[in-house]
Amino acid sequence: MKQSAAQSVPGLSGSGYTAGIDIGGTKTLILITDNSGHVVVRNKKPTVQAEHAEAFIEGVFQQLDEVLQEAGLLRHSLIGIGIGFPGAVNPHTGMIHHVPALPLDGVNLLELIRPYYSGPLYLDNDVNIAALGECWQGAGAGSTQMVMVTVGTGIGGAMILNGELHRGAGYTAGEISYFVVDHRPEEAAGSVSSLEFGRYESLASGTGIGEHARRWLHQRAGGAGEQIIAQAGTIEQVQAIHVLQLAAAGDGDAQAIMAEPIGYMAAGLANIVSLLNPERIVVGGGVSESSYYMSELTRRVQQFTPIEAQLVPARLGNEAGALGAVYGVLQTLRTPAER
Amino acid sequence: MKQSAAQSVPGLSGSGYTAGIDIGGTKTLILITDNSGHVVVRNKKPTVQAEHAEAFIEGVFQQLDEVLQEAGLLRHSLIGIGIGFPGAVNPHTGMIHHVPALPLDGVNLLELIRPYYSGPLYLDNDVNIAALGECWQGAGAGSTQMVMVTVGTGIGGAMILNGELHRGAGYTAGEISYFVVDHRPEEAAGSVSSLEFGRYESLASGTGIGEHARRWLHQRAGGAGEQIIAQAGTIEQVQAIHVLQLAAAGDGDAQAIMAEPIGYMAAGLANIVSLLNPERIVVGGGVSESSYYMSELTRRVQQFTPIEAQLVPARLGNEAGALGAVYGVLQTLRTPAER
Repeated sequence: MKQSAAQSVPGLSGSGYTAGIDIGGTKTLILITDNSGHVVVRNKKPTVQAEHAEAFIEGVFQQLDEVLQEAGLLRHSLIGIGIGFPGAVNPHTGMIHHVPALPLDGVNLLELIRPYYSGPLYLDNDVNIAALGECWQGAGAGSTQMVMVTVGTGIGGAMILNGELHRGAGYTAGEISYFVVDHRPEEAAGSVSSLEFGRYESLASGTGIGEHARRWLHQRAGGAGEQIIAQAGTIEQVQAIHVLQLAAAGDGDAQAIMAEPIGYMAAGLANIVSLLNPERIVVGGGVSESSYYMSELTRRVQQFTPIEAQLVPARLGNEAGALGAVYGVLQTLRTPAER
Repeated sequence: MKQSAAQSVPGLSGSGYTAGIDIGGTKTLILITDNSGHVVVRNKKPTVQAEHAEAFIEGVFQQLDEVLQEAGLLRHSLIGIGIGFPGAVNPHTGMIHHVPALPLDGVNLLELIRPYYSGPLYLDNDVNIAALGECWQGAGAGSTQMVMVTVGTGIGGAMILNGELHRGAGYTAGEISYFVVDHRPEEAAGSVSSLEFGRYESLASGTGIGEHARRWLHQRAGGAGEQIIAQAGTIEQVQAIHVLQLAAAGDGDAQAIMAEPIGYMAAGLANIVSLLNPERIVVGGGVSESSYYMSELTRRVQQFTPIEAQLVPARLGNEAGALGAVYGVLQTLRTPAER
């Protein structure tokens, strides 16, 4: 991906199909693409439930076989398989750590997968593959200095710097959920554990926005936030989406609620901009579909840092990761001179 | 510097001397090293005062000639010259921007320097060369994932990621002076300009520590901070060094004063650790000489992020930059295969 991430894939001779698998905590998406990166079949299912790593991997390959069957293909018709996991993956050794959602902590994925598939494999972290996907076919196309931030239940990050994924010394780079943007010296700092919900995401994630909105509505006296509650049904049913829709429509209460999580998110993104000077930050997740959110976020980031960067919404939605997994395979198949 | 930054410099045939020049806002340091990176002569002088870029560069080369004369050398005896500037430098084109301290904004350094020296040149930002120096011969030796943070009048940052300097899309990466670690949503965010003192450095730099200490001492009622004032003479004379020395000696007031700037600094470093997962953060500047400061900083960083990184004091002091400038020259002289 040096220079630019073109949609065409040079260096692949002959034809072939590639599987991209994005394993999430709740859903697993499998895409099969043809040689030019076009999706020929897609399949989304609840993520395999298994107590042990072996059974888990077997379940993933069962799902893959079903998808392949649908497309009239066999595993050996594939030129490679790319898989993203919600954890810290070393793509070279296949070791995975920090994967609370799945029974894979500390296992060697390459060893587990080899009995099922002996062709080219690309394994990586789920946010890394999403960044790769957006950089290949989405909002990051053409950029060699790109940060991807996904805002959903939590907040995740990944970086493509100088045209390459930056994974960090322990393959945990991008753990921006732990960002501190609201430190007050008078507070005693609490300790964090590696599995806990991060401080930044508890303030600024989709979940965080919902919690903040419900707290705000409970605390306000009569009348305030009426429209939001009407939209959702009850205060307890209020989610980020209700507040965002009304904020975009000009509702003052909804905008007041959004000011806090957008301010926190902006502070974190501004810090990324000041540190890395990326060309672009691609924001993924439901909030990025709101142009109100994106324009307020951009305005606030510019208040926090004089360094310029484009903030753009992700374009590939839930398919970014599986497409990025495909791209990872294609990259590994190129000769060094073509990269 | 892929793999590890060895002290020996492979790929240099024959013997030769290299000049490393670190141009600061107030002082300019010139080092001449031999082929193995040992300093044979050093010279530090006030930075050239000039109104125009041409006169400034001429002054720098006059200073270089004096140093060379001292060593019995001539410009053409040098195998290359490396120069660091306090601004955003594009090492490929020679363009420099954001250089408030010198009359160089927007000039092409390569064009200006060529009449004085036609051999191999390496031009970069001053914090980048300091990081390179520490990575070559100092506290970052052996690390390919290293962040350098300098804490002095202001706060600067530079990164070596995957063994290479990360300079950013606009060559301004590392501008951590603008970090926001204390955002309070109820505050209206003020706009920042690119030449203003950054928010982070106003809280956590050496200057910031001094200002905070004097404010703290003015506000405290009788008796508090007595030892600090006695050490400095008057409240107005209190500097970071006085507070740090007494904090290290166990003075409760001095420790109370340090808690705030250390907390802010720690939040910023923790954010770097969470985002980049570096192996090591090298802290430079006067504060890093205090083991009290370094151990408190480490403790607080660990409270903010579960991602591990070593925090170590810089080892090369004021010579890091000039040595890094030398190393930059040596790197450019290696054949690609040797890097």
